[in-house]
Amino acid sequence: MIYLDNSATTALSPAVRVKMDEAADTFANPSSLHSAGLAAAKLLDEARQSVLAALGLKNRRDYRLIFTASGSEANNLLISGLLSAKKFRFVPRVVTTDSEHPSVLATLAAWEAKGVEVVKLSTRGGRISPEEAAAAVNERTVLFTVMAVNNETGARYDLKPLFALAKQKNPSVVTHTDAVQGFLKVPFAPAQMMADAVTLSAHKIHAPKGTGALLVKQELLKAKRIAPLIYGGGQEEGLRSGTENVIGIAAFGEAAREGEAALPAFLKKAALLRAFFVEHLPPSVRVNEAPVQAPHIISITLPGVRAETMLHYLSQEGICVSAGAACSSHKTHSNYVLPAFGLTPKEAEMTLRISLCRFTEEEELLIAANTLKKGLETLIRA
Amino acid sequence: MIYLDNSATTALSPAVRVKMDEAADTFANPSSLHSAGLAAAKLLDEARQSVLAALGLKNRRDYRLIFTASGSEANNLLISGLLSAKKFRFVPRVVTTDSEHPSVLATLAAWEAKGVEVVKLSTRGGRISPEEAAAAVNERTVLFTVMAVNNETGARYDLKPLFALAKQKNPSVVTHTDAVQGFLKVPFAPAQMMADAVTLSAHKIHAPKGTGALLVKQELLKAKRIAPLIYGGGQEEGLRSGTENVIGIAAFGEAAREGEAALPAFLKKAALLRAFFVEHLPPSVRVNEAPVQAPHIISITLPGVRAETMLHYLSQEGICVSAGAACSSHKTHSNYVLPAFGLTPKEAEMTLRISLCRFTEEEELLIAANTLKKGLETLIRA
Repeated sequence: MIYLDNSATTALSPAVRVKMDEAADTFANPSSLHSAGLAAAKLLDEARQSVLAALGLKNRRDYRLIFTASGSEANNLLISGLLSAKKFRFVPRVVTTDSEHPSVLATLAAWEAKGVEVVKLSTRGGRISPEEAAAAVNERTVLFTVMAVNNETGARYDLKPLFALAKQKNPSVVTHTDAVQGFLKVPFAPAQMMADAVTLSAHKIHAPKGTGALLVKQELLKAKRIAPLIYGGGQEEGLRSGTENVIGIAAFGEAAREGEAALPAFLKKAALLRAFFVEHLPPSVRVNEAPVQAPHIISITLPGVRAETMLHYLSQEGICVSAGAACSSHKTHSNYVLPAFGLTPKEAEMTLRISLCRFTEEEELLIAANTLKKGLETLIRA
Repeated sequence: MIYLDNSATTALSPAVRVKMDEAADTFANPSSLHSAGLAAAKLLDEARQSVLAALGLKNRRDYRLIFTASGSEANNLLISGLLSAKKFRFVPRVVTTDSEHPSVLATLAAWEAKGVEVVKLSTRGGRISPEEAAAAVNERTVLFTVMAVNNETGARYDLKPLFALAKQKNPSVVTHTDAVQGFLKVPFAPAQMMADAVTLSAHKIHAPKGTGALLVKQELLKAKRIAPLIYGGGQEEGLRSGTENVIGIAAFGEAAREGEAALPAFLKKAALLRAFFVEHLPPSVRVNEAPVQAPHIISITLPGVRAETMLHYLSQEGICVSAGAACSSHKTHSNYVLPAFGLTPKEAEMTLRISLCRFTEEEELLIAANTLKKGLETLIRA
């Protein structure tokens, strides 16, 4: 199998599998007070330190890391936690973009139905206008949330100036980024970009599905500005109750440690792989590029073949790619991102996503490009 | 290590570990449309069928199983989902008990602060009065939630007549049981007891931490009576978004399959082990028993030694037990269950929980009883 769907999820790395096997032996409940419980709690602590280190936040006390079960849960926790923690004496406004992940936009839609005002900035061409962003933030704005890297186009948004503008317009705005597609794929430093909160996911960096995290400024927790989604035993600083997924969290820590070490090489490799793949594509295939592009996500629009048709053709040839966001077998299939980027609905339907990881090899991309070419010939003729 | 803290969490069974290793190879996103994605989706489906079968619900379409990350999340999803799905034109009432898990009581406390009325039935002596239950249900009652087996005392509550009474008083009441400590530990059949919803946890039945489930009547979903806690990609029938924990869910399925087959033998074994352990306890130790007792949970009150002191003594001797609910390293430590049972606060502080699993051996319990005896001699003298 040639797996080129790494933005949907990644395979476990060998080191992560070893770590999971070790963690499986440390099976007690981290809340238990006996020695076996303490050993499990230690695993959680080590993983937390590794993820913080990979964010450039080693030994800093001003950010806290709350483990969740997914990036989606982290996005929901931040948004719903912030909007439900207190009653606002005004109509709260949330500023976001028209290309966020469904776990941001569907959550905001639920809040919109309850009276919250949601303003979506345009991401046309993979770019967010600082002027539009600044104009959107007013004194009622409680949250400014923009993803780091778009999951379908690979567009990177320059968050630092956007967050600075938002804070300048309203110092009490919470700045948040869903960095699920950016963390350990592109350079990413939450503190430098003035992010108050960051969403992470383990399974995009070669750890298993079932673990995510919300990084959050300590001062937000202290001021009780975020209410829990899940109440109970008080785990994760009382913000996320439920027995911790020890194996998944230990694996997340290991993946972060590995991913941090591998990032400089991956940045070079991803750029080379991207150029190589694009070079071998048939000239009729269009590559959708943002002004600042994350190289590991390659969005291509086919000439006259539906993406889903090509996806199945490639799948039969043992090549896995995506025809849009990962959630494509569900009703809430994201069909808004590519049109927001500027594609016509028809172009969007003919657009495939190829996504790379640090284990992707040139040879695999060569086979994929050639199979795609053959597929175009076959499917257009058909 | 002699591990007698199986109500806090359990070790992975050998078959579950094998299943996890297999599932780790099927790593694609279950929402992806390529063949690798379909293989992952198949794992989820198989696990769902296994858990349903273990609940006696094979091939039934009237119950749906929603995978979550924990029993706590399942409890929160049911309670908050039900209370937030619509605006009530009256003050909604929830009937529960004074001994529920913190993930029920803390969630209800948050709703109480928002105006919901919460009525807690007494569990004194490990028994719930049907008269008190019937009297508590009125026309404003939206939820009747009682756990199947208490996590600290092992008291089993006879849910069928309670649920029948509740439905009789108000047919629109949702009946729910947190069966985390009952599922595959005691006979348990949701359909027979008229449960509309059931909370399950994987890590109490030898699967890993990080997976739970909410079983829920299809008609509640159809009528949209439960809102999601986590919005996004629409996984789990739109009720719980986020990429599924494939390894954890596959493991849950395997553990359910194994646990169902092992249940008849475990029921016999647990009763024998309990009797054996109690017989070998020093006569000064009191066993707290409910009228209907789950044999795998043994609550004992020590003569004049704090439970936590004994817990640490036993831990040093390589024996793991609990001094209360699992969440004891957190602030929301449950200190209400034993007093609700009828113990004085002082007795509660001297009460240990020993909890068994199907891998527990007589010899381990003999060592534990003898070490406890030695501990009492040492600690009382000290």
